[in-house]
Formats: sequence, structure tokens, C-alpha cells
Amino acid sequence: MTLPNAAEAESRTVKIREVGPRDGFQNEPETIPTAEKIRLINALGRAGLNRIEVASFVRPDVIPQLSDGVAVLDGIDLPEDVDRLVLVPNSRGLDNALAQRELFEEVALFVSASETHNRRNINRPVAETMADVKKMGERIVAEDLGFCAVIATSFGCPFEGKVPLDRVLDLAEQFAEAGATELGFGDTTGMCNPAYASRFFAAALERLPGIEVTAHFHNTRGQGLANAYAAFEAGCRSFESSFGELGGCPVPAGSTGNIATEDLVSMFHEMGVDTGTDLPALIEAARAAQTVLGRKLTSHSIVAGPVVWAAPDTDTGA
Amino acid sequence: MTLPNAAEAESRTVKIREVGPRDGFQNEPETIPTAEKIRLINALGRAGLNRIEVASFVRPDVIPQLSDGVAVLDGIDLPEDVDRLVLVPNSRGLDNALAQRELFEEVALFVSASETHNRRNINRPVAETMADVKKMGERIVAEDLGFCAVIATSFGCPFEGKVPLDRVLDLAEQFAEAGATELGFGDTTGMCNPAYASRFFAAALERLPGIEVTAHFHNTRGQGLANAYAAFEAGCRSFESSFGELGGCPVPAGSTGNIATEDLVSMFHEMGVDTGTDLPALIEAARAAQTVLGRKLTSHSIVAGPVVWAAPDTDTGA
Repeated sequence: MTLPNAAEAESRTVKIREVGPRDGFQNEPETIPTAEKIRLINALGRAGLNRIEVASFVRPDVIPQLSDGVAVLDGIDLPEDVDRLVLVPNSRGLDNALAQRELFEEVALFVSASETHNRRNINRPVAETMADVKKMGERIVAEDLGFCAVIATSFGCPFEGKVPLDRVLDLAEQFAEAGATELGFGDTTGMCNPAYASRFFAAALERLPGIEVTAHFHNTRGQGLANAYAAFEAGCRSFESSFGELGGCPVPAGSTGNIATEDLVSMFHEMGVDTGTDLPALIEAARAAQTVLGRKLTSHSIVAGPVVWAAPDTDTGA
Repeated sequence: MTLPNAAEAESRTVKIREVGPRDGFQNEPETIPTAEKIRLINALGRAGLNRIEVASFVRPDVIPQLSDGVAVLDGIDLPEDVDRLVLVPNSRGLDNALAQRELFEEVALFVSASETHNRRNINRPVAETMADVKKMGERIVAEDLGFCAVIATSFGCPFEGKVPLDRVLDLAEQFAEAGATELGFGDTTGMCNPAYASRFFAAALERLPGIEVTAHFHNTRGQGLANAYAAFEAGCRSFESSFGELGGCPVPAGSTGNIATEDLVSMFHEMGVDTGTDLPALIEAARAAQTVLGRKLTSHSIVAGPVVWAAPDTDTGA
């Protein structure tokens, strides 16, 4: 056996950012007690996830489920190498976040590619959000914080239908100009299919050289991992997911969960792709969330556990 | 717009065989009343599924859930173009099936690629099953019935680990020599990953010219549709699935459901691939199964419904 070269090794490694503590918890009908959140986030950190979106500086009257964000940031105890991310909707949110500057390493900004979805989600026209992004970007860069951005409804909008690929990538370039080093593309309401994911990520990677391109799929119609596989095949090496398949979107009602971190990790590990995470520990964290929430979650690995290969590998391995 | 040529049209069409009434119903802890089975199967036929595995001629003391197979076959009322399939484990089962010759159009035989799984599932060595297959094949062909075969644990076995690709394809060739015109490959306990599915189906299609090659995936760890997409990309155009994500395998305990027909159809329709089925009607059939079984099923489209594109297509379509 010859040693793989660096490019080949690179191609068999993906980054996974855990968004369950923000994207998942904010969509729960009942607010999860702060101590339980802290316990679950600590478990995620111990499972090897080294980027976790922990809090959101949104208005507590709009999303009361995340109103304890500072207490959560203050209470968690994560390994040294874990980056804590906070989501910020506007300059007012950034003011509040920067008042806690020492509690996180990265800021995530977002906009919807669909005008209607942006207005319904954060009550602002896209142009106004992007003008604010420019100002926020300067401050984030000046603070020497990590700066990533997520574009919601990148693959379709329940209100506007198909979203032109160029419109999405134009917004991505505006974020990059504002200083973002990572661009995530969100399938907010689960409208992507793997053929389009393949085409989309090939185009995004070509249009955004030097930018980390991240896929954020929902499993609304069970296709989430098919989309992730297609994006991987197109060259994407960074993914957002949510333990237990938690998550969704505040609008429209009925939008269901993100792809499950443990199902995504199971797929990549079986493909021989390194994620840097401990699958059994991730499954334990998802099961703990199930207990806290008091209902069955829709992740599949939570039931089946990891694949167990009874005998040593043969030449049939993937 | 130019008309697609025949090969292109072919490449955008898949066949879907519904196995829920057999593979799904046999894994339910409680036997479903015959009248309910008939009502659900009739709904599947009206939804455009033109091949439905309706019954299994197995020993009623081993699988009591399917002991009403003849009554079901006798009671269903399907459109003229729907093929009714029956699963047969051995020559004794074929005797019983042929006594009802007028009630079905196709026979499905099966074996496990794994010796241990075959013994635990049907209490026979693989060689003995294959000797019986030869005899059964002659009778099926003589009766002018459709003849398909499914090889279980094609992608891995919970008892034996990885299963050599050549062993699986050798069995497939034996089935083809016995007269089978279609070979299905079953991921009985959900151990396949999309990278291996891609490699496997490319090899199977090359080794089995003139044979319909069918993928039968389970969604045990949420990767079922990713595997289906990878198989499609490798050239596979025939799939087995189960409405509501029903199904599993009698051994080992805890094996969960097949890929959901409605999730598979949703994915293909969004990719612009024709399935010949009516997705809203399929979702209604799965919801009806949920009502009959009195529990939430794990299919995702059952919750979300089909993708609704609010605006006319633009050039961003898949």
C-alpha cells in the first residue's frame, strides 16, 4: 500500500459544523432548560465536533427558546480546540454579541436568497440585510473573529419557487467581499434534490475560490443525505447538520429537521471519509436529546446504532 | 425544445416495485386484518405502482403475518396493467403458489449472499437453496410467469461482515441461468453506503447484460436515498421500496425499514426522473397505513408532503 498524497487525503476528509444547539433548539415548542442545553452541548464537544453553533443573538421576544444564549455560552465547558459560533441577524444583534466577545470564536451572518422568505423570517428586504452585512463584516474582521455566512432558501423557496443560482452566488460574493471566509448554502425548507445539489456545488466551488463552501441540507423529504452525497461528489467538503435531526425553520410552519449529524457521520465513515468525530458518542448525545425532549427523534442511527462489521475488511470495502 | 431521443428518455425513467405489502406487513408485530391489507394494496395500485409484491408463500407458523396471502390475492382489485408478485422460499412454497396460478403474474425467489444469514433466515445452506432455485426456475419458466430474484445481504451481513462482490454476482448469474430476467440486490440490514452502491451497481450492470438490475435499499441509518441516488448515477433504473418506510428483516432483531416509496418518488420527480406514479396518492396510501397501524411511520414525505414550487420553473431547474 502506498501512502496517499496530500490532495487525496484532503479529499477523504470533511468538516462538520453542529448547528443543533441553535437551529434545533430554537424550533422546539418548549424552551429547553439552560442546564440541559449545557449538558448536551458539552456532550457534542466531547464527541469530537470542533465547531458548534451555540447561541443566537436574536430578539428574545421573537425566539424565546434562545433567550438564555449568554448563560449557555457562559456555562458550557468545551475542549480547547472547539470553536463556539454565534448567529447574528443584524447590527443590533452584533452589538449584543460583541458585549460577550470572550465567549465565542466565530460569528455567522445570514440572509435568505428569496426576498419573500427574508421578509417573513427577519422582517427586512434583502438589500437592507446586505447593507447591514457590509457594516457588520467590518466589525467582525476588526475583532479578529471567524466570519461565516449562510444563505437560506438557496435551493428553492416555498413562497417564490425556484431561486436562480446566480442570485444566490451573487449574494455569496457580497458576503465574501464583506470578509466572510466561509459560505454556507441552506436548503431551509427541504426543496433541493441531489441532481441540483451536484450542479449547484460545482458552480459554487468554481465561483468562490479560496472560500470554504458549506452545504446545509434539511431532511424534509428524506433526501438530505442524498443531497449531501451529491454535494460531496461535486467537491464540497464542509457540512452543517443537527444532532437527532433536530431543527427546521420558523417559516413556513411544518418545515422539519436538518440532516442528522449522526446519520451524516455514519454515511461518511462507511465511505471511508474522516469526520474527526466519535460516532457512538454522537449517537449517545442524540439519545440524550431524545430523553430531554421526551419524544422520539427522527434520526435513524439513533435506533440502529453504527454499522458493525463482524469480520475483518475484505477487498469489497467501499 | 427538441424531443429527447429514446435513450435519453429511457435514462430519465425508473421502475419502482412496491414491496410494502410483503416486506412491510411481515415485519409488523400485529397481523394486519385482511380487509385492511386489501384496501391499502388497492390504494397503491391506484397510485400508479404497476408491480406490487402482494404475498409470500412461506410457512404460516413462521410468518403468521402473511398467512392470509391467498385471501389477499383473491380480494385485491388492481388496474389491468399492475403485475402481482409473490415471494416463494422453496419448492414447497412454489407448489402452494402454483395452486393459485391465476392470482399473480410474477414469482420472486431469494437467497442470502451470506451463508450465516441464509441459514438463520430460511434455515438452509446457500448451496441447497441454489439447487432448489434451479428446479423452481424450470417450473416458473414453464408456467410462463415473470421470474425475478433477490439476493439478500448483498452489501454486508451483520453476522459475517463484508460480503465479496464476486460471491454476490456469482449467485446472480446462477439465478439468470435458472431463468430469472431480473436480479434485485438487497441491503437487508442497511450496511451499504453510496460509494459502495456506485461501485456495486456499475459492476452488476456490466456482469449481467440483458438482465434487469434492481436496487433494494433499507433506510436503517438514513442513507437509503443516498444509496439509491448513487445506484441511479451508476446506471441502475429499477428500485424496490416500501410505502411508509415499512419493512425490515426478521433477523437480526432491530433491523428497520426499507426506503419509503414516497420519499424515493419525491426525489426522482424533483430530479426530473419519471416514475409513472402519483406522489400525492402514494402519500395518502402511506398515511392510510399509518392510521391502520396506529403509530407514526418514519417516512418523511408523509409529514412534509410533496415539494410545492410556488412559481413557474426558471433555468435553475435540476
